[in-house]
Amino acid sequence: MKKRLTLDEYVDGIVKADIRTLSQAITLIESKSPADIELSISLLDHLMPRIGKSIRVGVTGAPGVGKSTFITQFGKLVNSKKLKLAVLAVDPSSSMSRGSIMGDKTRMADLLQLPNVFVRPSPAGNNLGGVARKTREVMLLCEAAGFEYLIIETVGTGQSEIAVKNMVDFLLLLLPPLGGDELQGFKKGIVEISDGIAITKSDGKNVQAAKAAAEEYRSALSILSSNNKEQVGVKTCSALENIGLDSIFKSINEFIRSQKKNGHFFTNRDGQLINWMHEELKHQLTNSFYSDKSKKILIADFEKQVEKKVISPHGAVRKLLN
Amino acid sequence: MKKRLTLDEYVDGIVKADIRTLSQAITLIESKSPADIELSISLLDHLMPRIGKSIRVGVTGAPGVGKSTFITQFGKLVNSKKLKLAVLAVDPSSSMSRGSIMGDKTRMADLLQLPNVFVRPSPAGNNLGGVARKTREVMLLCEAAGFEYLIIETVGTGQSEIAVKNMVDFLLLLLPPLGGDELQGFKKGIVEISDGIAITKSDGKNVQAAKAAAEEYRSALSILSSNNKEQVGVKTCSALENIGLDSIFKSINEFIRSQKKNGHFFTNRDGQLINWMHEELKHQLTNSFYSDKSKKILIADFEKQVEKKVISPHGAVRKLLN
Repeated sequence: MKKRLTLDEYVDGIVKADIRTLSQAITLIESKSPADIELSISLLDHLMPRIGKSIRVGVTGAPGVGKSTFITQFGKLVNSKKLKLAVLAVDPSSSMSRGSIMGDKTRMADLLQLPNVFVRPSPAGNNLGGVARKTREVMLLCEAAGFEYLIIETVGTGQSEIAVKNMVDFLLLLLPPLGGDELQGFKKGIVEISDGIAITKSDGKNVQAAKAAAEEYRSALSILSSNNKEQVGVKTCSALENIGLDSIFKSINEFIRSQKKNGHFFTNRDGQLINWMHEELKHQLTNSFYSDKSKKILIADFEKQVEKKVISPHGAVRKLLN
Repeated sequence: MKKRLTLDEYVDGIVKADIRTLSQAITLIESKSPADIELSISLLDHLMPRIGKSIRVGVTGAPGVGKSTFITQFGKLVNSKKLKLAVLAVDPSSSMSRGSIMGDKTRMADLLQLPNVFVRPSPAGNNLGGVARKTREVMLLCEAAGFEYLIIETVGTGQSEIAVKNMVDFLLLLLPPLGGDELQGFKKGIVEISDGIAITKSDGKNVQAAKAAAEEYRSALSILSSNNKEQVGVKTCSALENIGLDSIFKSINEFIRSQKKNGHFFTNRDGQLINWMHEELKHQLTNSFYSDKSKKILIADFEKQVEKKVISPHGAVRKLLN
């Protein structure tokens, strides 16, 4: 049976970097009971002055690209730099939360054994929006508990990447060492929002293919990049042979240093916080309408009427709001 | 002084394809008076059974790419195919609505002189969201009045393109005949959602550059395209010399024929209508909150508190909703 702590106990434990309290607080944040939600909001309010001091890095890439291996090796590197690391998963379909592949479990176990490393998979069965909102809150709890480097893992169809983009300082896109026609699966929308690209598995017989892929992406990106953005860097790496990870770590640091220098880092962070407030406000305003059972039946009925062109979308809204 | 018609007069006039009534109905749709809004919703409800029978094409591109010239020449082509054409502008900063360039006015005048052509610039001074919403309604009025080919013009930073994408069957992206480093300005996000690309001004000394640009885009797109989408076609054209427009017209027709065959055309249309209802519902639910004067002051105050980390985003929302 889980013990509910008091607000002071949560705050004290997190401020003291007690991992057991942090885990309990995350459980509280993820709870759907009204009392827990009330308490979790008060907890966040109390922790606000302590947040914002970490580097937040999003890592995204399609299944099979080697995300778990990359994050594990990269996490070890971060750990070797004496930085307290927390790894969070956003997407419920990610290998981290499914844990269906034995190899992943072993590798994550590697990371978990290190001191000052905290790994939190996302709760299964939640929808993306929900998980993303909770992940943001979990991120703040980790910062308040003194974690200095946060890795937010995501995999998905674009929506989860945008959610992650809105909570990190740097979004790293992992791509496989494929060339030519095999490159097809690439999502342009994700490149648009990523701050850096790493070609994974650049080892053994893949080295040449990885280099060629990096060159192709660089060339395509130089044509397709926007004016108002620094050129996205493309690097190759091998988590297996531990090659290229340090270079990626350094380039992320350089990016953040330059963003702090020109002030974008701070305006981005402020904007993310305020954006979060508006998102939450709009979510709650519409949610209270949409979650009403009698409204649900009405909405489904009006969808059919609109589809059949019996009523206009505006006419349906007028009736729904009366 | 503008005469207000009765609902029956509006409906009858539009069904009879009376352009004067259509214009008056558009003015009604664009009005912000509560009585006009009420009447316009009833009008849309009455016209719903008559909508959805046109081909809707969005045309987008950066300023200077030659959008007005393209639309004028393309519009003449559509007109020559005996199709009733309506041209609507979404973005308030578009050359059509600003009319700041003399050349544009003359060219649009060319189009306006043709029979069965209706050109409607967007009202100046409206924000994007507003214009986009009204454009959708104006589009329906035009369909109800028997227009068979609709061109929705937009220019912008991505947001207006997404709004247009959500109301058309085909989004055409116009790009300039530039090569190499000059291609930098290209927005990847817009390519992601476009159904076809045309390189403009492929005439005189630009022909080679236009061909080279088309080749570069084709190559970049073959690397960067998504799996789940048909390859986006890249064509060159000259509105000045009337070259390539017929090929673009045909490829749009082919795209729509294939989309009708596999059913995507209809599911897309149904989805757009239902999406429109939900957008409008959410807009009105949040708008009634955000437009309240006392709430505005509170929101601005909470933004500052959140930025200063005095309160969490969730804490601010809790207070705002109590």
